Amino acid sequence: MPKLLVVNGPNLNLLGKREPEVYGNQTLDNLNDTLKKLASDLGYELIIFQSNSEGAIIDFIQKEAPDAKGLILNPGAFTHYSYAIRDAVKSVAIETIEVHLSNIYTREEFRHKSVVAPVCRGQLSGFGFYGYAMALSYFADTGNNE
Amino acid sequence: MPKLLVVNGPNLNLLGKREPEVYGNQTLDNLNDTLKKLASDLGYELIIFQSNSEGAIIDFIQKEAPDAKGLILNPGAFTHYSYAIRDAVKSVAIETIEVHLSNIYTREEFRHKSVVAPVCRGQLSGFGFYGYAMALSYFADTGNNE
Amino acid sequence: MPKLLVVNGPNLNLLGKREPEVYGNQTLDNLNDTLKKLASDLGYELIIFQSNSEGAIIDFIQKEAPDAKGLILNPGAFTHYSYAIRDAVKSVAIETIEVHLSNIYTREEFRHKSVVAPVCRGQLSGFGFYGYAMALSYFADTGNNE
Amino acid sequence: MPKLLVVNGPNLNLLGKREPEVYGNQTLDNLNDTLKKLASDLGYELIIFQSNSEGAIIDFIQKEAPDAKGLILNPGAFTHYSYAIRDAVKSVAIETIEVHLSNIYTREEFRHKSVVAPVCRGQLSGFGFYGYAMALSYFADTGNNE
Amino acid sequence: MPKLLVVNGPNLNLLGKREPEVYGNQTLDNLNDTLKKLASDLGYELIIFQSNSEGAIIDFIQKEAPDAKGLILNPGAFTHYSYAIRDAVKSVAIETIEVHLSNIYTREEFRHKSVVAPVCRGQLSGFGFYGYAMALSYFADTGNNE
Amino acid sequence: MPKLLVVNGPNLNLLGKREPEVYGNQTLDNLNDTLKKLASDLGYELIIFQSNSEGAIIDFIQKEAPDAKGLILNPGAFTHYSYAIRDAVKSVAIETIEVHLSNIYTREEFRHKSVVAPVCRGQLSGFGFYGYAMALSYFADTGNNE
Amino acid sequence: MPKLLVVNGPNLNLLGKREPEVYGNQTLDNLNDTLKKLASDLGYELIIFQSNSEGAIIDFIQKEAPDAKGLILNPGAFTHYSYAIRDAVKSVAIETIEVHLSNIYTREEFRHKSVVAPVCRGQLSGFGFYGYAMALSYFADTGNNE
Amino acid sequence: MPKLLVVNGPNLNLLGKREPEVYGNQTLDNLNDTLKKLASDLGYELIIFQSNSEGAIIDFIQKEAPDAKGLILNPGAFTHYSYAIRDAVKSVAIETIEVHLSNIYTREEFRHKSVVAPVCRGQLSGFGFYGYAMALSYFADTGNNE
Amino acid sequence: MPKLLVVNGPNLNLLGKREPEVYGNQTLDNLNDTLKKLASDLGYELIIFQSNSEGAIIDFIQKEAPDAKGLILNPGAFTHYSYAIRDAVKSVAIETIEVHLSNIYTREEFRHKSVVAPVCRGQLSGFGFYGYAMALSYFADTGNNE
Amino acid sequence: MPKLLVVNGPNLNLLGKREPEVYGNQTLDNLNDTLKKLASDLGYELIIFQSNSEGAIIDFIQKEAPDAKGLILNPGAFTHYSYAIRDAVKSVAIETIEVHLSNIYTREEFRHKSVVAPVCRGQLSGFGFYGYAMALSYFADTGNNE
Amino acid sequence: MPKLLVVNGPNLNLLGKREPEVYGNQTLDNLNDTLKKLASDLGYELIIFQSNSEGAIIDFIQKEAPDAKGLILNPGAFTHYSYAIRDAVKSVAIETIEVHLSNIYTREEFRHKSVVAPVCRGQLSGFGFYGYAMALSYFADTGNNE
Amino acid sequence: MPKLLVVNGPNLNLLGKREPEVYGNQTLDNLNDTLKKLASDLGYELIIFQSNSEGAIIDFIQKEAPDAKGLILNPGAFTHYSYAIRDAVKSVAIETIEVHLSNIYTREEFRHKSVVAPVCRGQLSGFGFYGYAMALSYFADTGNNE
Repeated sequence: MPKLLVVNGPNLNLLGKREPEVYGNQTLDNLNDTLKKLASDLGYELIIFQSNSEGAIIDFIQKEAPDAKGLILNPGAFTHYSYAIRDAVKSVAIETIEVHLSNIYTREEFRHKSVVAPVCRGQLSGFGFYGYAMALSYFADTGNNE
Repeated sequence: MPKLLVVNGPNLNLLGKREPEVYGNQTLDNLNDTLKKLASDLGYELIIFQSNSEGAIIDFIQKEAPDAKGLILNPGAFTHYSYAIRDAVKSVAIETIEVHLSNIYTREEFRHKSVVAPVCRGQLSGFGFYGYAMALSYFADTGNNE
Repeated sequence: MPKLLVVNGPNLNLLGKREPEVYGNQTLDNLNDTLKKLASDLGYELIIFQSNSEGAIIDFIQKEAPDAKGLILNPGAFTHYSYAIRDAVKSVAIETIEVHLSNIYTREEFRHKSVVAPVCRGQLSGFGFYGYAMALSYFADTGNNE
Repeated sequence: MPKLLVVNGPNLNLLGKREPEVYGNQTLDNLNDTLKKLASDLGYELIIFQSNSEGAIIDFIQKEAPDAKGLILNPGAFTHYSYAIRDAVKSVAIETIEVHLSNIYTREEFRHKSVVAPVCRGQLSGFGFYGYAMALSYFADTGNNE
Repeated sequence: MPKLLVVNGPNLNLLGKREPEVYGNQTLDNLNDTLKKLASDLGYELIIFQSNSEGAIIDFIQKEAPDAKGLILNPGAFTHYSYAIRDAVKSVAIETIEVHLSNIYTREEFRHKSVVAPVCRGQLSGFGFYGYAMALSYFADTGNNE
Repeated sequence: MPKLLVVNGPNLNLLGKREPEVYGNQTLDNLNDTLKKLASDLGYELIIFQSNSEGAIIDFIQKEAPDAKGLILNPGAFTHYSYAIRDAVKSVAIETIEVHLSNIYTREEFRHKSVVAPVCRGQLSGFGFYGYAMALSYFADTGNNE
Repeated sequence: MPKLLVVNGPNLNLLGKREPEVYGNQTLDNLNDTLKKLASDLGYELIIFQSNSEGAIIDFIQKEAPDAKGLILNPGAFTHYSYAIRDAVKSVAIETIEVHLSNIYTREEFRHKSVVAPVCRGQLSGFGFYGYAMALSYFADTGNNE
Repeated sequence: MPKLLVVNGPNLNLLGKREPEVYGNQTLDNLNDTLKKLASDLGYELIIFQSNSEGAIIDFIQKEAPDAKGLILNPGAFTHYSYAIRDAVKSVAIETIEVHLSNIYTREEFRHKSVVAPVCRGQLSGFGFYGYAMALSYFADTGNNE
Repeated sequence: MPKLLVVNGPNLNLLGKREPEVYGNQTLDNLNDTLKKLASDLGYELIIFQSNSEGAIIDFIQKEAPDAKGLILNPGAFTHYSYAIRDAVKSVAIETIEVHLSNIYTREEFRHKSVVAPVCRGQLSGFGFYGYAMALSYFADTGNNE
Repeated sequence: MPKLLVVNGPNLNLLGKREPEVYGNQTLDNLNDTLKKLASDLGYELIIFQSNSEGAIIDFIQKEAPDAKGLILNPGAFTHYSYAIRDAVKSVAIETIEVHLSNIYTREEFRHKSVVAPVCRGQLSGFGFYGYAMALSYFADTGNNE
Repeated sequence: MPKLLVVNGPNLNLLGKREPEVYGNQTLDNLNDTLKKLASDLGYELIIFQSNSEGAIIDFIQKEAPDAKGLILNPGAFTHYSYAIRDAVKSVAIETIEVHLSNIYTREEFRHKSVVAPVCRGQLSGFGFYGYAMALSYFADTGNNE
Repeated sequence: MPKLLVVNGPNLNLLGKREPEVYGNQTLDNLNDTLKKLASDLGYELIIFQSNSEGAIIDFIQKEAPDAKGLILNPGAFTHYSYAIRDAVKSVAIETIEVHLSNIYTREEFRHKSVVAPVCRGQLSGFGFYGYAMALSYFADTGNNE
C-alpha cells in the first residue's frame, strides 16, 4: 500500500484540549484515527508525525520522504519562518500539500505569509480537520496522472 | 435541491484554449460539466457564472447569494485588488471558498496577496480543476453542521 | 433648476438590507427619496446613480457632469483603487464632494487611503446618511460664491 | 442650553491674517462670531478655545468635556502626531468631529494621516469655514438619537 | 490586409474636449482617423476600441486578438492596477505595445508603475498622439522578422 | 532622605475616572498616596508630577533631576514621539525607569515603539499600578551598588 | 505550595561565564538559587528550565503549565522570531511575564521587536537578575486578585 | 536698528551644563551675550528666546515675527516632529535659518529628518556655537538684496 | 543641417559582441551607420557618442547640447542611479528622448526605475535598435511645432 | 594538535544525494573526509558536526568552542533567521568563518541576508566544497598572528 | 599660507549659464574669484577644482588633502549616491564642510539624503554663493582650536 | 601562462597609508607584489589594475576580459551602486570573484548590499589581504574542471 506522510508542527498536539473556540474540541488523536481510516479506504497507509521541534520535523521528512508518495504538512507557527523546513521539503522533492486549520488570512499579519508555500503543490487554509481529508483525497484522486 | 454558486473571474473563460502549459487543456465548459455532474451526485444544484467584468460579478453575487448555500469563488486577477468583490462577499454574508488553479504563492509577487481571503471561509490554491471539486465536497460534507 | 449629481459605488444598493449593525436599516431608496426632497427644498434637481461597475460610473460622470453644478460621490470600495474614477472626476472638472457613510479611518488599513480625495473639493467621512445632506447643504450654501 | 466645544489648534489664530490665498481672509474671530450665532439659533451654547499648546488643548478637553454634548476639533498640525490629544478625546469619551479647513489629502504627504481620526465620529476636510457649520448642524440634527 | 488592434482605456474618449493644456485639443476621433489612414498606407487594417470598462476591454482583446498581428494599448488609469488586463494580454499572447500620451514618469507617483508593462513588447511614453504612429510603424517595419 | 522623581504624562490624571475597563478604578491620587507610603518605608522621598504639557514635563525633569537619585517615568502618549523628553532624560543623566500601566505591545501599532526607551535603564510594561512599586523597589534594592 | 515556572532560552546557560561586561558575572545557577530562595520565602515553588532548543522549551511549557500559576519567560534570542513559543504560551493560557536582562531597546534593531510580548501579561527589560525577582514579586503580590 | 529673532528649543538651556563632550562647556547665556555683541556690531538687535514648550515657541514666533527681519531657529528635538512649528514659520513668512549645533547627519537615524527644513531659507548643521554667527552674518550680508 | 545628439552609456559598445540572445548580433557601429543614414534622409546631422564614463557623458552633453535640436539618450546602467546625468540633461534644457533596447520593465527590479525619465520628453523601451529610429522620426516629424 | 570546528546546518546531510544540479554529487561524508585529510596536513584536528536542529548546533558550539581555535560554520537555512546561533557564536567568542556552498546573492531574496554574518570574521559564498578548504587555509595561514 | 580645497561636482560649471531662476546668474568663475580674494584676505590659499567625473574628484581629494587644512565640498548630484567620494573624504581624514547652493530639503525627495554628510564636520544648505564664504569663515575663525 | 585580472576600486590605492586600524599597514603595492609572486608560483600571470573611476574600471574589464581566465574584483564603494560595473562583468561573461578586505556585514547598513554579487561566482568578505590569495587559489585549484 503506498504511503503518505502527515506532519503537524508545534502546538498542534494541543488540539481539542485548548482554545476550542478557535480549533474545535476534536483532539489530534481523533483526527489521526479518522484520517487513517479514510486513508485506508482510499488504499493508502499514513505515517503520522507531530513535533514541537523544527529539527525533529526535518529529520522525519528526510527519513520518510523517499518511501512516500506525498506529504500533508501543517507546519503550525513554523509556517512563517522555518526556511529550514522549506529547504527540507524542496530537497527531498516530495509532492507536498500545506494545510492550515484556520484561515490564516483572517488572523494576525505575521500569519499571512507562508515561507513553505513556494515549494508546495498547493495550500489549503481554513477548513479545519476537513482540510486534511481534502488533501488526502487530492493525493488519492490525482495520484496516477502526476 | 440546495444551490451553490461558482464564480470565475477574468480570463478564466480562456482555460484550455491558451497557456496549456500553465493551466492544462481542459476548457471551462469541460470543467463546468464535470462540476455540475459531481454536484448533482452530491445533491446540489450549481449556478455557474464567468465574467471579465468586476461589476457583473458583483451583480451576480448580490442577486444569487440570498438563495444559495455557498459560493466557490475564483476571482482571477481581481483576487489581488478588487475590494469591491470583497465587500460584495461580505455584504451578502455567504459562506465562500476562494479557489485558485495554480499555487499563487509560487508566482509573481503581486499574486501572493488576496484581498478577498479575509472574508472567506477558506482558500484552496494550486490544485487545478480538482480544487473546485474539493470545495464542492467541503460544502457537501460540512453543510449540515455549519 | 440647477442639477447636482449623486453617485454611489459598489454594494451601496444593499444599504439597509445587509449589515444593519454597520450601516443602519435605511435603504438606498429611502436615502434617495429623502435627499431628493431636501434638494428640491434647496432649489436643486438631483440626478442619482448607483452601479457596481466602475465603467458605468465613469460613463455616468462623463455624460452628466457638463450639465451639473456638482457631484456628491461615494465610490464605495472603488475609493481605494479606482484611479480611473479619479481621472474621470478630474477630466470633467466638476466640483466634487467625497462622502463615506462610516468613518473610514476606524476601519481596515486599506480603507484609510482614498485615491479619489486629491481631486475633490472635500471629504466627509463617518456621518452616515446625514453626510449626503451635509454635502447638499454645502453646494446650496456656497453655490454662489464659488 | 446644551454646550458644544470648538477647539482650534496651533496657528489657526492667524486665520485671515496670513496666507489668505490658502485660507481666505476671514479671521478666527469672525468665524467664532458666526458660529456662535448659528449655534444659538440651533439651541446650543458654544465654548470656543484656541491654543498653540498641545498641553493646553488637552487641559481644555479634560475640563470641559464632561459638561458638553460634543466637540468640534481642528487640531491643526497636531492632527498628524499628537497621540496625546487623541488619548484625551478617547479618555473623555466625547462625540467628536474632526474638521480641516483645507482638503488635507491635496497637500503634503505628512498631512494625509490623522492620528486623531480613529477616535472621532467623523471627519470633514476641505470645506473652509463652512465645515464648522456642517459639524454644528450634525450635532443639532442628530443630537437626539445618539 | 493584416489587422492591428488599438485599445484606449478610460477617459481617453474625452481627448481634445477636456484638459487641453495637458493633452492638446485633438479629439480621439481625429486621432483615429489619422491613424487609420496611416495604417492603410502601411498596409494594415486597424480595429479601434475605447471603453471606460475594464471588462469590456478584456472582452475586446479576447475576441479580436486571435485574428490580429499586434495590439497598441493605452490602458489609461488601468495601467496602474488592472492585473486583469495584464492577464488578458498575456493569455492571448499577442505582441503588444503600451502607449501613453504624456510621460508618466513626470506625473504623480502612482502613475510611475505600469502593471501591464511586463507582458508587453515595449513601452512608449510621452509622445502624445505621435506615439501611436510610432507603434504602428514599429509593427509595419518589424512585422516580417518577428 | 534621598529623593526619587515620579513623572506621569498626558491624560494619566484621568486614571480611575475614565475607561476603568482598561485602567482600573484607582485614581492617580490613590496611586500617589500608596507610592509615597511605600517609598517612605523604603527610605525615599518621592517628588511626584503630572502634566499634559510636554514642556512642563521637561521643565520639571531639568529642575528636579540634579537632586534626585532616579526617575520613574510614564510618559503616556508622549512615549511614542517626544524626542524632546528623551533628550531631557539623556541630558540630565538621571537613572530612569520607563513604566506603562498596560502592556503597550498588545495595543495599537503606534504604541509599540517607545522613543524614550533607549535612554532608560529599563522598561516595565503591563503591570498596572504595581509597576510603579516594582520600579521603586528596584531603586531601593539596587541603589547602593549602582 | 503553588508553582511558578521560570524558562530561560538559548545561551542563557552561559551567564556569568561569558561577556561579563554585558551580563555581569553571576552564573545562571546563582540566579536560580537566589530565585528559589526568594520564591520559597514568598510561598511559591519554582520549576526552572533552560534550553537552547525551541522545541524543548515548548514541550516544557505544554507539560508544566497546567499545574502552574504563572510563567517567567526569558526567551533569549527566540524573543525575536519564535512564533512557536508565542503560540505555546497562548495555547496553555498561563499568565506570563517576559523578562530580559538587558534593555533590549538599547541594542541591535532586531532585538527591539518581541513576537512573544503580545501574549504576555507584561514585559520587564533592562533590570538584570533583579528583573526575575520583580516578576516573582508581581505573582506573589497580585496572585489573589487575578 | 532692525531686529533678528533667535529661538532655541528644548534642552538647549542646558548647554554648557551637561554633556560637555558633545556640546562644549559654553553656556547658553555665554552664547547669547556673544551673539548680541556680534549682532550689535553688524547693526542688528537680537530678540532671543528659549523654551522647552512647543506652544511657547509658536507664540513667540507669531508675536515677534511681524517686526523682525529674520529668524535663527534651533528647534532642538522639535526639529524632527513639530509640524506645528513648521506651520508657524510658514504662516508668518519670515526668512528663517535652521541651525544645529552638532551635525545631525552623524547621529541617530531619527535626527536625520528635519520637518522644519522645507520652510526655511537654509540649514546649518555641525558648526557648534559658530553656526549662529554664520547665520547672523548671512542676514547682515545679504539683508539688502533679498 | 540641424544636429541631433545620440548618447549611449556603459557597455553599449559591446552590442552585437556579447549576449546576442538578449541584444541581437548587430554591433553599435552597424547601428550608428544605419542611424546616420536615416538621419541624413530626414535632414539631420547626428553627433554620436558612447562612453563607459559618467563624467565623459556629462561633458559631452554640456558641450554639444547648445548646438543641437535634441538628444537621444540610452544611459545604460546609469539610467538607474546617475542623478548627475539627469541634472546635466535638465541644466542644458535640451529636448531628450530616453531609449532602452530591451523592455526594462521585464528585467531585474532595479532596472524598473529610471532617474533620468522625469527630465525627458518621453521614453522608449523594448524596441531594440528600432527604438533609435523611432526617436529620430519623432524629432523629424515634430521638430517644427515644438 | 589544535582543533577547528566544522558545523553544518539543516539539510546539508543530504549533500550529493539530492539536487545534484545545484550542489554537485559529492556527499557530506566525502567532504568531511577530504577536509579532515587537508586539516591533518595543515596540522589541525577537525571536530565535525551536522544537525537539523538549531538547539543541537548551539549545544555543540557552546561545548566545543572553548577548546577550539576556530569555527567553520555553514548554518544552511538558519543563516537567515537564527539569532540564537548568532548569539551562541558571539557568546563563546570563537573566531568564525561563515561558509555557503552556493552564492547566496544569486538566489531567493530571503537568502541575501545573513543574521550570522555580523558576528563572524568573514564570509565565503559560492565556492562549493572548495569554500571549506579556503576557510581551513585561512585558519592555518593566519593562525599565528591573530 | 595654509591651503584650503574647494571642490565642485557635476554641472556646477554651468552656474550662471543655465537655470538662473534657480541658481542666480553669477558664473562659477565669478564665484571662484570672489572666494579666492576672500580667502586671501583671511590668510588662506584656495585650491579650486570642478569636475563632472566622480573619479577625478576622488583623485583630486587624495592628491591635495595631505597638504590642506580643510575641504569645502559641493558634490552636486554625487551628494546622493557617491559612496566612493564619501570614502575618499573619510580616508584622507580632512576636515570637510559640505555646501549646497539651494536648500536641498525643499527639492525632490532624492535630494534630501546626503551620503557624504556623515563624514563631514558640518553641512550648509540653501545659502547660494554665500555658503562658500560661510564655510571659508568657519575654517578661518575656528582653525586654531581644532 | 594563463592570465587572471585583479581590479581594485576607489580609494584602495590608499591602503596602508590611511586608516591602518581598519585596513592594516600593508600598501597596495605590497599586496600586488605578494599576489604576483603567488600567482606566478601557481602558474598564472596577473594583470592588476586600480582606479578611482568607474568608467576606467569598465574600460579595463572590457579590454582585458577576453584574454583572461578569471577576475578578482574588489569594487570598493562601487560595490554598493555601480550597476554599470555589474553589467560589464555580466557582458564579458568572465568568471569573477568579489573580494572585500573587511567584513562588509559588520559595517554601515549601505555596505551590506552588493549590486555586483549576483553576477559573480562567489564572494569573499572579511579576510583582509589574504582574501585575494584565497581567490587566486580558487582559480588555480578549480581552473580545470570549470
